[in-house]
Amino acid sequence: MGNFFGHPRNTNVRVSLPAVCFVWQIAMIILFGVFIRYDEESDVRLWLEHKAAENITSDIENDFYFRYPSFQDVHVMIFVGFGFLMTFLKRYSFGGVGFNFLIAAFGLQWALLMQGWFHSLDHTTGKISIGVESLINADFCCAGSLIAYGALLGKVSPVQLLVVTLFGVTLFAVEEYIILDLLHCRDAGGSMVIHAFGGYYGLAISWVLYRPNLRQSNRLNGSVYHSDVFATIGSLFLWMFWPSFNSAITDHGDGQHRAAINTYLALASSVLTTVAISSASQKRGKLDMVHIQNATLAGGVAMGTAAEFMITPYGSLIVGFCSGIISTFGYLVVTPFLEKYLKLQDTCGVHNLHAVPGMLGGFTGAIVAAAATEAVYSREGLIQTFDFEGRFADRSVNTQGGFQAAGTCVAIAFGLVGGAIVGLILKIPIWGDPADDNCFDDEVYWEVPEEEETIPPVLEYNNHMIHKHQDMTESNFSVEQS
Amino acid sequence: MGNFFGHPRNTNVRVSLPAVCFVWQIAMIILFGVFIRYDEESDVRLWLEHKAAENITSDIENDFYFRYPSFQDVHVMIFVGFGFLMTFLKRYSFGGVGFNFLIAAFGLQWALLMQGWFHSLDHTTGKISIGVESLINADFCCAGSLIAYGALLGKVSPVQLLVVTLFGVTLFAVEEYIILDLLHCRDAGGSMVIHAFGGYYGLAISWVLYRPNLRQSNRLNGSVYHSDVFATIGSLFLWMFWPSFNSAITDHGDGQHRAAINTYLALASSVLTTVAISSASQKRGKLDMVHIQNATLAGGVAMGTAAEFMITPYGSLIVGFCSGIISTFGYLVVTPFLEKYLKLQDTCGVHNLHAVPGMLGGFTGAIVAAAATEAVYSREGLIQTFDFEGRFADRSVNTQGGFQAAGTCVAIAFGLVGGAIVGLILKIPIWGDPADDNCFDDEVYWEVPEEEETIPPVLEYNNHMIHKHQDMTESNFSVEQS
Amino acid sequence: MGNFFGHPRNTNVRVSLPAVCFVWQIAMIILFGVFIRYDEESDVRLWLEHKAAENITSDIENDFYFRYPSFQDVHVMIFVGFGFLMTFLKRYSFGGVGFNFLIAAFGLQWALLMQGWFHSLDHTTGKISIGVESLINADFCCAGSLIAYGALLGKVSPVQLLVVTLFGVTLFAVEEYIILDLLHCRDAGGSMVIHAFGGYYGLAISWVLYRPNLRQSNRLNGSVYHSDVFATIGSLFLWMFWPSFNSAITDHGDGQHRAAINTYLALASSVLTTVAISSASQKRGKLDMVHIQNATLAGGVAMGTAAEFMITPYGSLIVGFCSGIISTFGYLVVTPFLEKYLKLQDTCGVHNLHAVPGMLGGFTGAIVAAAATEAVYSREGLIQTFDFEGRFADRSVNTQGGFQAAGTCVAIAFGLVGGAIVGLILKIPIWGDPADDNCFDDEVYWEVPEEEETIPPVLEYNNHMIHKHQDMTESNFSVEQS
Repeated sequence: MGNFFGHPRNTNVRVSLPAVCFVWQIAMIILFGVFIRYDEESDVRLWLEHKAAENITSDIENDFYFRYPSFQDVHVMIFVGFGFLMTFLKRYSFGGVGFNFLIAAFGLQWALLMQGWFHSLDHTTGKISIGVESLINADFCCAGSLIAYGALLGKVSPVQLLVVTLFGVTLFAVEEYIILDLLHCRDAGGSMVIHAFGGYYGLAISWVLYRPNLRQSNRLNGSVYHSDVFATIGSLFLWMFWPSFNSAITDHGDGQHRAAINTYLALASSVLTTVAISSASQKRGKLDMVHIQNATLAGGVAMGTAAEFMITPYGSLIVGFCSGIISTFGYLVVTPFLEKYLKLQDTCGVHNLHAVPGMLGGFTGAIVAAAATEAVYSREGLIQTFDFEGRFADRSVNTQGGFQAAGTCVAIAFGLVGGAIVGLILKIPIWGDPADDNCFDDEVYWEVPEEEETIPPVLEYNNHMIHKHQDMTESNFSVEQS
Repeated sequence: MGNFFGHPRNTNVRVSLPAVCFVWQIAMIILFGVFIRYDEESDVRLWLEHKAAENITSDIENDFYFRYPSFQDVHVMIFVGFGFLMTFLKRYSFGGVGFNFLIAAFGLQWALLMQGWFHSLDHTTGKISIGVESLINADFCCAGSLIAYGALLGKVSPVQLLVVTLFGVTLFAVEEYIILDLLHCRDAGGSMVIHAFGGYYGLAISWVLYRPNLRQSNRLNGSVYHSDVFATIGSLFLWMFWPSFNSAITDHGDGQHRAAINTYLALASSVLTTVAISSASQKRGKLDMVHIQNATLAGGVAMGTAAEFMITPYGSLIVGFCSGIISTFGYLVVTPFLEKYLKLQDTCGVHNLHAVPGMLGGFTGAIVAAAATEAVYSREGLIQTFDFEGRFADRSVNTQGGFQAAGTCVAIAFGLVGGAIVGLILKIPIWGDPADDNCFDDEVYWEVPEEEETIPPVLEYNNHMIHKHQDMTESNFSVEQS
Repeated sequence: MGNFFGHPRNTNVRVSLPAVCFVWQIAMIILFGVFIRYDEESDVRLWLEHKAAENITSDIENDFYFRYPSFQDVHVMIFVGFGFLMTFLKRYSFGGVGFNFLIAAFGLQWALLMQGWFHSLDHTTGKISIGVESLINADFCCAGSLIAYGALLGKVSPVQLLVVTLFGVTLFAVEEYIILDLLHCRDAGGSMVIHAFGGYYGLAISWVLYRPNLRQSNRLNGSVYHSDVFATIGSLFLWMFWPSFNSAITDHGDGQHRAAINTYLALASSVLTTVAISSASQKRGKLDMVHIQNATLAGGVAMGTAAEFMITPYGSLIVGFCSGIISTFGYLVVTPFLEKYLKLQDTCGVHNLHAVPGMLGGFTGAIVAAAATEAVYSREGLIQTFDFEGRFADRSVNTQGGFQAAGTCVAIAFGLVGGAIVGLILKIPIWGDPADDNCFDDEVYWEVPEEEETIPPVLEYNNHMIHKHQDMTESNFSVEQS
């Protein structure tokens, strides 16, 4: 079969996939053994000492109670949200949710190490301390690679996805270190470090891996009724829990509170503008499920940086308003344009859901930061919100705004350059990626149950009957002809 | 096509739907700009001042940590719970979950304003302060309109639904003000203000919009196997999170704790009586998914008022016991009766799940309130639970019971009268509602993917054709042989 | 029909199912009335007194805020997690999720009583006090019976399941009392008391109920594409919330924090080894959804005892590593072996997901307990973690390790012996269980909607074929006629 369409592809991953998983997991065990320890809130001895030292009288002060509910919401977004959002293809639901699962479980371990080395390595002991905030950050870090998977959905092998994740997590930790630590940006919900980076990372990989003859498998590049309902599960869990995503690692108290409110409002606003544009663009005003599943989330992405700032409730509505419009417009116009003229195939439209809204979110954050005043925040509030302490004690909000904008550019640059390089690595013909005519098909990497969805025995019965008829009529015919 | 069934309907919403969404969202931005501000727990400056003024030493005292986990559960109930419960129709899953999404996102913004004007407007500054409790109340407020949607499912256009929501939220805020503020009722889980109101509101609308010839599209007014499984997702998330719904805005501490326990017990009890009645009513004791998906929830509805009271654990079981029976009985007997004799079409049976259990919950609350004693609550506990403060400091529990019962009647009256008026508004032939033969069909308002999933109605068709062929070929054959 | 396959089975449960549900629910109401009261954190008077007595200044100290988010996660695991994991069969999704619902709602009430009598009966008043921790324990207790259902899925009647649950909950409460109170074991996430017990309980029942001719209905003993996607919903919610399961009832503060971290890590690790073994075992390296849905969870099961100990992060990864391998290997080799040689039919493979990983978890806990040192835990930490107080004040960690191992054996013994006895009870031919040829078929106990899912391309294809035939036969006919 492959002969007609170029070199036959070997999609057998029976050696490579188990090998990568085993080697990787063993490496993780060794590195965790060397580096990772419980932090002072999850280690029994250290927590007792910490409570005594800080005069803490109640266990409720443990960071666990500030962040664990948000962590679980984020966890649902990563595994069910992202996973089910990618089940919309008619025959790639296993790959959508299953490889998402693999990527995240693989990536979060590496993320704990990479982020630990950059952010919480104790230089005296050489150890990394982890707690619930580390778990949230690890989930966030995986999100970058999961976003990239959205652009590649259906066109790559699981081994390639592990390569994407390995480099994606590494690049993420580096750009995050530059943006959050060196440039001292704030990016609680990751408009810059997660969405802009992840989106452009995926787009760059997909651009390098362009498949000019992909239309041959377009038959499978679409949804069916029930696969769209499955995808809506993912979409809604993302939508509902986005306030937790943007507030999960913000400041205790008003910080988490405000980030949740702002995100809630922005998301509601983008639903209305998404519906408006979607309806206005279609014959007879019919809505398109692709828009409803995706563009409604753009408000959450675009609010990722500014959610913890005093953007005001109506400011949040405006952010959602604009991002819903831009994202839906992206699905209608930009994605087809990119595919036709830029040779860029973006299965889930991460350009419209993550890349552009993430970039907008970064610049929104820059503007809101630059506009901060003592009258609104109070002096102490400004220091606390923007963490103007230590060597950043003298930074003005205007300077902060400039650095926020610069951080957005860094994230995009990391995504584009890193993605291009990873794309080239993935072009090496050893990764078991599918042929064009096998794209978007679970059959390649999954044992798919024989399809006999409704009333199988009858079905087979019918086929038998039809063949029997065929034989009868044909022989019948030939008898006559003779 | 329309000619045979009356005037052809114009279901094109390409102008009206985008126009309403845009105008509405812009109005929201302006009104939020004028009125809505962060409250003292989500504003950075105010929270710092509040902590200093109240000698609060820990951010964990922020209301966010008392209510945010419950808020997220309520949020899931609104979007996934209500949404997926309405995916049960075989070809209206997009409309079920999608329009639910639109209604809630549209309504919650208006709810923040309406409830703010009535409950938390600062008359000095003219501003409304919002925090996590406001978000919960906004979600609750939308629930009223979503319940009404249950009665209308498949028979109205999205533009009509926005009208239903606009008036629904407005009526809700008014009746809530009357019931909670003027009558000083307690209704933590909204048996009265949410369920009784929402249920009767939807029924009254549906009664005005009666479609005598709807049987023509009855082909689509039913479920298929997988759509029933989807609906079960919604049903279970409602069932699981109902303890959070009823405890989300109750008093800190024992109030939230007790409301969760009571609701948990009532729900478990209604599962058993629902199964019992469902099985007893069917040939060979087979269970009906409609009952399992819906009537099992009646215990949560009926516990909406009394959950925060000292109803006792066995009292909760009794409430669940009765409401499971009544609700299942409603699906078996009352809904068909209403349709046949009262000309009332109630797609999801909100009469049995919300209207009647809500009313029961209101009266249950009245009885439990009237039966409260100092021996059980302690004096301080009575004051705290029933908020006997200010001008209500002298109210007795008996009086309170009377007002609770009156409140239930107010909710029902608002639902019926408001619904009748809104129904008349919706009869104006400008809203793009579907013709009878297009009801329950996603094709009208959604771009539905071409279906190539499996095979059945065709199956029956095929069987007919095949048998016909068989006859033909066989007779044919025999003719030849002879 | 039954004549050919043995005695005709009477699967009519129209009397027995309602009777059991009603009698049971009424008994529950009476017993709750006699025994169950709110505890001092959910009773308004007692909480006020408790706060005054303990000088508690804030309601946030109420146990509700420590445990309710975890409770809700556990609740989701019980109803959506277990429930949807069992929807994988092509025509038993209603039974999978619906009977799971019934079992849990039935069992949790009995669990509150049984666990109350054994653990929290006030011998002065004769009352049981319940709070949020009781609800979690009741959910845990049901999990044992739900695990057993996994082995029986599709082969038993709902009435039999209620019997399984009645005895399952009772046995659970007794073995839990022996293991946790008499042997003074620690088992926060229930590797022993939940998983080992539940797994072996189900296996023993299934072994007694062996059906030698079951292959006749094997046609339905498998999945279809969309039923596998539904099952993945259950699987992912179990996977995501397992950190909450293992930390729900551990010590406040560092205990809950550490249990969540350890479980998170173990689960991630088992995903990678599951993928590795699944891929390595199949032709062309294809993944098997059964493994991905189930074996990825083994890390959570195996971490159930040790999660609250100082097992270290890399220790958690090792536990996940091993249990992922063992569990996948079980699905590949052991389940077929058990069915063929031990006459043991295990529909969901609970042997590989619960029984063996639970046993491993119990022994892992024993080893980690025995290896505990004061250097790691501090003296106070050791006392707190292992509850070395009262008559256990002098117990050494080595002794504790021995008792942990003994506890594991007790759990297994209770499961095997209890299950065998319950199996014999279920063989009495009065329970309405299905005939072999009706196994795995929802038609027996559910009103299943007529299937007409609708589907064009096949339709068109078929129509083409049919028209072709029609032409052929017709032309044929006409030729003959002429």
